[in-house]
Amino acid sequence: MEQPTGSAAVSFEDARAVMEAQPFSRLLGTKLTAFRAGHAELRLVVRPELLQQGHFVHGGVLAYAADNAITFAGGSILGAAVLTKGLVIEYVRPAQGDFLRAAAHVVTRSGRHAVCRAEIYAVTGNNDMLCAVAQGTVSAVRPAP
Amino acid sequence: MEQPTGSAAVSFEDARAVMEAQPFSRLLGTKLTAFRAGHAELRLVVRPELLQQGHFVHGGVLAYAADNAITFAGGSILGAAVLTKGLVIEYVRPAQGDFLRAAAHVVTRSGRHAVCRAEIYAVTGNNDMLCAVAQGTVSAVRPAP
Amino acid sequence: MEQPTGSAAVSFEDARAVMEAQPFSRLLGTKLTAFRAGHAELRLVVRPELLQQGHFVHGGVLAYAADNAITFAGGSILGAAVLTKGLVIEYVRPAQGDFLRAAAHVVTRSGRHAVCRAEIYAVTGNNDMLCAVAQGTVSAVRPAP
Amino acid sequence: MEQPTGSAAVSFEDARAVMEAQPFSRLLGTKLTAFRAGHAELRLVVRPELLQQGHFVHGGVLAYAADNAITFAGGSILGAAVLTKGLVIEYVRPAQGDFLRAAAHVVTRSGRHAVCRAEIYAVTGNNDMLCAVAQGTVSAVRPAP
Repeated sequence: MEQPTGSAAVSFEDARAVMEAQPFSRLLGTKLTAFRAGHAELRLVVRPELLQQGHFVHGGVLAYAADNAITFAGGSILGAAVLTKGLVIEYVRPAQGDFLRAAAHVVTRSGRHAVCRAEIYAVTGNNDMLCAVAQGTVSAVRPAP
Repeated sequence: MEQPTGSAAVSFEDARAVMEAQPFSRLLGTKLTAFRAGHAELRLVVRPELLQQGHFVHGGVLAYAADNAITFAGGSILGAAVLTKGLVIEYVRPAQGDFLRAAAHVVTRSGRHAVCRAEIYAVTGNNDMLCAVAQGTVSAVRPAP
Repeated sequence: MEQPTGSAAVSFEDARAVMEAQPFSRLLGTKLTAFRAGHAELRLVVRPELLQQGHFVHGGVLAYAADNAITFAGGSILGAAVLTKGLVIEYVRPAQGDFLRAAAHVVTRSGRHAVCRAEIYAVTGNNDMLCAVAQGTVSAVRPAP
Repeated sequence: MEQPTGSAAVSFEDARAVMEAQPFSRLLGTKLTAFRAGHAELRLVVRPELLQQGHFVHGGVLAYAADNAITFAGGSILGAAVLTKGLVIEYVRPAQGDFLRAAAHVVTRSGRHAVCRAEIYAVTGNNDMLCAVAQGTVSAVRPAP
């Protein structure tokens, strides 16, 4: 696990404020539920508006959750000004449950870049079912010269 | 480009009905704007609810658009009962504009599987700006034995 | 971690024999150094023939090591008849050292499919430097009907 | 398609010299067969040493070919000092034939970065069989300050 640099430290409170400042995350009802150096977790309640034509959560919601969890995990060590450069997501099971939980962690940091992994679970009661597995890269935004 | 098999043929009308039957796509305002064997295109208007904390479209919306365009492209040759197994997306420019356009095509089909690629553009007037580049795999769902 | 099914059990000895039966792995000098349910590790000595134009191991060698470690990890729970369907690899540091070590594990299994992750290290003395981070999907080959 | 910048221009001859300077590419017998702004193609003869335990080319060889073709395509517009940051490869058919052909092109360039796609074919006589489909990112190396 990577150590945050002094300048990059972002508090849980600050990170939550960033999440609340994302209109799309508010539309989906996402809450940041854990945030520490190298780790971030978010949750969103499974509402009917988040489904595809069957009875499962739309893959796009899982991809959003993976993307956002990875961004916050990267930001936890790189600072608030980060961009996710890209990600891969594998859908392993249809997602059905009370809420989604996306947990991301930093695998390694190299300069301004962090490679992160995320798992997305559909949670029903005490049962966390792994639905998608992701990996992505986050980069600190370079200040304009 | 692959030829659809007789049994797999899905009309533009049928495909639009599938899109309309996705609550998450209705929430985002997605319209299927092109659909033929091996190709699908969708559009969604950039509303304030789709942004991240800056003034750009949330990466999760781009990932959703890539996922869904790839699913419909795969479905155009594999039939309506398909699942996207996974995808990779690279974000290449911040997305800002009047609407998003996601165009996907089938690169190759092998049995029940199709590898597809997609480009996601932010469109302002006559200017299509490429914002994300994706690749994914779609599989026809096997009927229960 | 997944449990192997009875029929799928592959011994370390059998797995080593598969590795030895791969001409390309012999060309590169790859040894299978660990193999148990859900986990596989391989090593290859860094010879001058494996470098790119600089003094680093060619990215293609790292991609090969990731691919093969993932295949063996998948095979450890799915049985010897498996195919890697695809993988993503992120190169995080130039690879330089005495040998490469690729460690892969199964994240989750769903039917005939397993999603695996791998880390590739360049090892010098007691120093394991993480050089690449990968994720891929392995599928058991369906017997011909 | 992107235009090379003046400073970045690399001739076919120079690019071939880079390929010849890669010991791993010499080990595999790779030849650069096409190179122009935004495009690169390489070929390698399918020798028994490149196979896996069956009669097919090892997936690691296909991943190497995709990686290298993508690097050269990126270098064609970004200049000779480039690094491939990562790639995804989907294996779509077993590779068997006289030689492999990997063709890569730049999809888009954004500053020092280029997103490229590649197709890898197994060629037998006049038959080009598509075996793998890849996408990756190449970055120009920043000179040390």
